[in-house]
Amino acid sequence: MPLLVVGSLAFDSIKTPRGHVDRILGGSGTYFALAASYFTEVRVVAVVGDDFTPEHEAVLQRRGISTDGIERARGRTFFWSGEYGENFNEAKTLATELNVFQNFRPRIPRQYLNTEFLFLANIDPVLQAEVRKQMPAAKLVGGDTMNYWINRKREDLVETLKLMDVLLINDTETKMLAHDSSLPRAANKVLASGPRALVVKHGEYGATIFFREGAFGVGTHPFRAPALPIEEVRDPTGAGDSFAGGFMGYIASQGELSREVLKRAMFYGGVMGSFAVECFGPERLTKLTREEIDARFQIFRELTHLDHESR
Amino acid sequence: MPLLVVGSLAFDSIKTPRGHVDRILGGSGTYFALAASYFTEVRVVAVVGDDFTPEHEAVLQRRGISTDGIERARGRTFFWSGEYGENFNEAKTLATELNVFQNFRPRIPRQYLNTEFLFLANIDPVLQAEVRKQMPAAKLVGGDTMNYWINRKREDLVETLKLMDVLLINDTETKMLAHDSSLPRAANKVLASGPRALVVKHGEYGATIFFREGAFGVGTHPFRAPALPIEEVRDPTGAGDSFAGGFMGYIASQGELSREVLKRAMFYGGVMGSFAVECFGPERLTKLTREEIDARFQIFRELTHLDHESR
Repeated sequence: MPLLVVGSLAFDSIKTPRGHVDRILGGSGTYFALAASYFTEVRVVAVVGDDFTPEHEAVLQRRGISTDGIERARGRTFFWSGEYGENFNEAKTLATELNVFQNFRPRIPRQYLNTEFLFLANIDPVLQAEVRKQMPAAKLVGGDTMNYWINRKREDLVETLKLMDVLLINDTETKMLAHDSSLPRAANKVLASGPRALVVKHGEYGATIFFREGAFGVGTHPFRAPALPIEEVRDPTGAGDSFAGGFMGYIASQGELSREVLKRAMFYGGVMGSFAVECFGPERLTKLTREEIDARFQIFRELTHLDHESR
Repeated sequence: MPLLVVGSLAFDSIKTPRGHVDRILGGSGTYFALAASYFTEVRVVAVVGDDFTPEHEAVLQRRGISTDGIERARGRTFFWSGEYGENFNEAKTLATELNVFQNFRPRIPRQYLNTEFLFLANIDPVLQAEVRKQMPAAKLVGGDTMNYWINRKREDLVETLKLMDVLLINDTETKMLAHDSSLPRAANKVLASGPRALVVKHGEYGATIFFREGAFGVGTHPFRAPALPIEEVRDPTGAGDSFAGGFMGYIASQGELSREVLKRAMFYGGVMGSFAVECFGPERLTKLTREEIDARFQIFRELTHLDHESR
């Protein structure tokens, strides 16, 4: 089934201990759409400026991504510049220029309105809610947010969370959102306030999905997917968006919304995140094959599964 | 098969956001031995002072642990005092009094000398090497160390690592030991310099075992075991030692040294670590049953294993 993402298309300048790149294609929408494109038909809703050329758009189109929802505004495209230290844990933001993104009001093309799988990437929760309300047919709505919105627009965010089925955020954001330093307790508080499932991303340690009682199946057992121990991380930018793309893309490709599908989606999320960090920018995500992806899925399986169940 | 541990018996004063305790039984040898005692016969070599009473010894004996190797010296038992903040990540040490531990020279009782499974808990690497050399029959030698020894006795430690089969340390220690900020690369450097397998403990995110090519089986695929998302961590003291006790204890209980045994041992390590943090001190480890342990093993399995392999 098709999957629609509303997010940012951007230009990024990135410096890591392994090198640097200048004004390359980036943004949550780019990473998400490319990662998801290996699983299902992807539709992008975003805004770009005059500096976004047909060649940039072709990066998405070559992966079969529908770009009819990309609005062109006068001015420059969203620009971000950041630097990572030796541990790659968190980027130090050097510059953020919202540019055309500042006045972004997502408009969903008419032919997209009945898309059943929707992902609200990390944008203003007020806009996320507007999009969600335009698409009442959506069967599964995933979303992201960040500390900026948790701190500045908590009330709006809390309302928006009620419109999401699965929220994907990291450990710190989960604890901040719930005002609780215990991750499992914080996760349960988040689930009580909105989404039916919460994916907490642990960076190099993988991710855990927590379920609300009865959501997508029976019980509340969480499920943890690993991340691959990658020898040479070049650039962690977009890893979380790529995880979300693999996760949502796989779910949209399946006929049912079951715990098993969501668990396998966690693995595919980890797989796409692990590819993303191998190169600067989204480059690695532009030329994968489904065979490479499934081979890495098997590596993730071997990394975590016991073969025999004897004692 | 019996398992011998050389480590510390200590008294600990611990403060965490959930409470505090004063001068309770602790030390790496205590946590390790108690955790391992659910899997196999355990023998402890350590030193204690006048303040270590028969009642303290009985805590070990009630778990069937052999205490013949506990030396009594004049003076006071090793004392440690520490405090944890809200995130429980690392203890702030408030006091360390080595006391009788300062002049500890481990003496292995004659009847222990042919023990085939040996664990060298976190003590001076020079002493670890002395013990190892007294026990040439040891079939599998596990060991621990810490940043203190990596910084102050690197050369001795490097020699001692050649005498170990499995080293169990955390992420920071691995990177420090290898002078490399990439964990998988650091792990391979450590393996090249000594042990056949390296267990890197990630705290609340579980642990990963890396294998040297050909060690215990074929290939170099790592394996990752989770930690349980525990709602109410009370006291993380001894979690790493309890992991090591579950890991080594399970291995000693098995007939073979295969990859599958080591993988299941990683799960049992995680299980014992997860019990340890539920109460202050080693209390939880004194009254478990094997049924509770195996039930939690199943929870760990459900937390990580996909049930079906369809796409």
